Amino acid sequence: MLSSTGYGVTNAHEPLSQLDFTRRDLRADDVQIDILYCGVCHSDLHTARNEWGNTVYPVVPGHEIIGRVAAVGGQVRRFKKGNLVGVGCMVDSCQHCSACAEGLEQYCENGFVGTYNGEEMHSGGMTYGGYANNIVVRDKFVLSIPDNLDPASAAPLLCAGITTWSPLRQWQVGPGKKVGIVGLGGLGHMGIKLAHAMGAQVVLFTTSPEKREDATRLGADEAVVSRNASEMEAHRNSFDFILDTVAAPHPLDPFIELLKRDGTMTLVGAPASPHPSPQVFNLIMKRRRLAGSLIGGIAETQEMLDFCGERGIISDIEMIRIQDINTAYERMLKGDVKYRFVIDMASLKQRA
Amino acid sequence: MLSSTGYGVTNAHEPLSQLDFTRRDLRADDVQIDILYCGVCHSDLHTARNEWGNTVYPVVPGHEIIGRVAAVGGQVRRFKKGNLVGVGCMVDSCQHCSACAEGLEQYCENGFVGTYNGEEMHSGGMTYGGYANNIVVRDKFVLSIPDNLDPASAAPLLCAGITTWSPLRQWQVGPGKKVGIVGLGGLGHMGIKLAHAMGAQVVLFTTSPEKREDATRLGADEAVVSRNASEMEAHRNSFDFILDTVAAPHPLDPFIELLKRDGTMTLVGAPASPHPSPQVFNLIMKRRRLAGSLIGGIAETQEMLDFCGERGIISDIEMIRIQDINTAYERMLKGDVKYRFVIDMASLKQRA
Repeated sequence: MLSSTGYGVTNAHEPLSQLDFTRRDLRADDVQIDILYCGVCHSDLHTARNEWGNTVYPVVPGHEIIGRVAAVGGQVRRFKKGNLVGVGCMVDSCQHCSACAEGLEQYCENGFVGTYNGEEMHSGGMTYGGYANNIVVRDKFVLSIPDNLDPASAAPLLCAGITTWSPLRQWQVGPGKKVGIVGLGGLGHMGIKLAHAMGAQVVLFTTSPEKREDATRLGADEAVVSRNASEMEAHRNSFDFILDTVAAPHPLDPFIELLKRDGTMTLVGAPASPHPSPQVFNLIMKRRRLAGSLIGGIAETQEMLDFCGERGIISDIEMIRIQDINTAYERMLKGDVKYRFVIDMASLKQRA
Repeated sequence: MLSSTGYGVTNAHEPLSQLDFTRRDLRADDVQIDILYCGVCHSDLHTARNEWGNTVYPVVPGHEIIGRVAAVGGQVRRFKKGNLVGVGCMVDSCQHCSACAEGLEQYCENGFVGTYNGEEMHSGGMTYGGYANNIVVRDKFVLSIPDNLDPASAAPLLCAGITTWSPLRQWQVGPGKKVGIVGLGGLGHMGIKLAHAMGAQVVLFTTSPEKREDATRLGADEAVVSRNASEMEAHRNSFDFILDTVAAPHPLDPFIELLKRDGTMTLVGAPASPHPSPQVFNLIMKRRRLAGSLIGGIAETQEMLDFCGERGIISDIEMIRIQDINTAYERMLKGDVKYRFVIDMASLKQRA
């Protein structure tokens, strides 16, 4: 067994603190990674506090992992010691269902294995995530990180990046398309960068007028305050695609009404209580679509990383020490982060 | 002006009764039709009673019209006197927007002209529908009815038929696809017939166990009682497409959960009050889609009629006299019709 140390919780009510635990021994198709950086996703907080009711304690969160290969199993050919690699939200899947066959492991019909709080397929225990010094992951779920990207700023690509990339690609965003991004947070800021780099006309929708300037700096052609009815009206029936990154319950109709005929709005955030029910009339009158999307497959994650490498796209981050994770959670809850916290795992050596 | 007589109302609170009115004189691109039959659609009742709040009185309902050409304007080449023809929900559109250019006049960006209670584009008055002895319609909105189809039973193809055909085609229903039809009424029974003829595996969802037998007679491979959780569970994650024809508010999640990854549920009925809000989780986890669809374009209506001619597909109807229209409305409200009332317009000569 591999000795690991990291930050986690043993129940829903305590702050995160240092935990020692073990990882499985390296199998033939495994990659052992020394973790350099790990992004902080809202899912980490939900799971640590058991807000989805499915947490098995102890839990070590973290699924935006960047590190260097420390060792590889005997059958691993794609990676060698020293490679800069990443791990996202998944570390395994059945590999034989139709979803896995299409490279869409996130929709694995037998259930993918989450990077943390997931049931290991082989050893039977639970998975532990990236708020830690190391991790052991099946090679098929390890991503290559382009060497030209700042490693810390690349971490959020593994969840926030792929979660926005996948629906943007699925719905053919590119030159000549007008794309809306709802919400400027961790996901939204990546959505703007990626849709802009894909060549689309990008409009950010926000409830915060003070975010306008940042939106255009990030690549939006325009920022619209969604509570301003006349600003919204000016965009009626004009969008090919709208990506809604807001997980809090909110009315969908004001955005659906902005879609062209045959336009699609895709939701990537699942609210704890439902959104107000969308008007059927708005869907019928222009044959519009409301869809969902879940992270992205491993092949498309690599595609996204390679695209980001070519274009020099990274996340806007605020680096923190692991000892500051509980403060970071509180700030994240207030939306006080531009636009993703990333843990510098070197801080873990400063043993508390 | 052309003298017409038909059944209509002059306010929201009276029963339908005979009205005399006039139609525009035949223009160069017009077709004058002697009406033989007209189907009775729920929209007729909504409009007669101003339930959508947009009725301009007097109104003469009816948009499932079958008749014979009585005269044509000087520029009309596609039709001549004696041809069996049909008119559906639309009688005009701008003909120059992108929707019209694609043959999707139902989504005309300048608004299509409804067959009744619509604003005429040229003369400025209102349109009067098919509960009448004749009608004058722009040739581009006149459909050819295959001679081998029973004319009365073909009438409902003009609205119930195309409203189900269009989304079935849009979402590529055919051999190897598993298709659900929600609700067995005027639309649902056409949905079953058309999806079956397209080669799909068809499952009807109904709240009425006694409709099972009829569903299979109409072409369904199976009928599922949607209130029976275990029957529903057996179909989980298995549908490529579900067409929901029910306009009354009802939970959508039990059906969305039956869709495969990337499956679509299309709504063609707009409820007066919203459906319960669908769970975002169900859309996200399998990248499912909720969509709407409105009738269909003129080109696809002709395509559907030709298909029905080749396959001998007609509606199951109950023929009524125009004098019985008010009773028919009451029965329609109770769902007491298998599956569409069609008015025999010869009865109009029995002047009340």
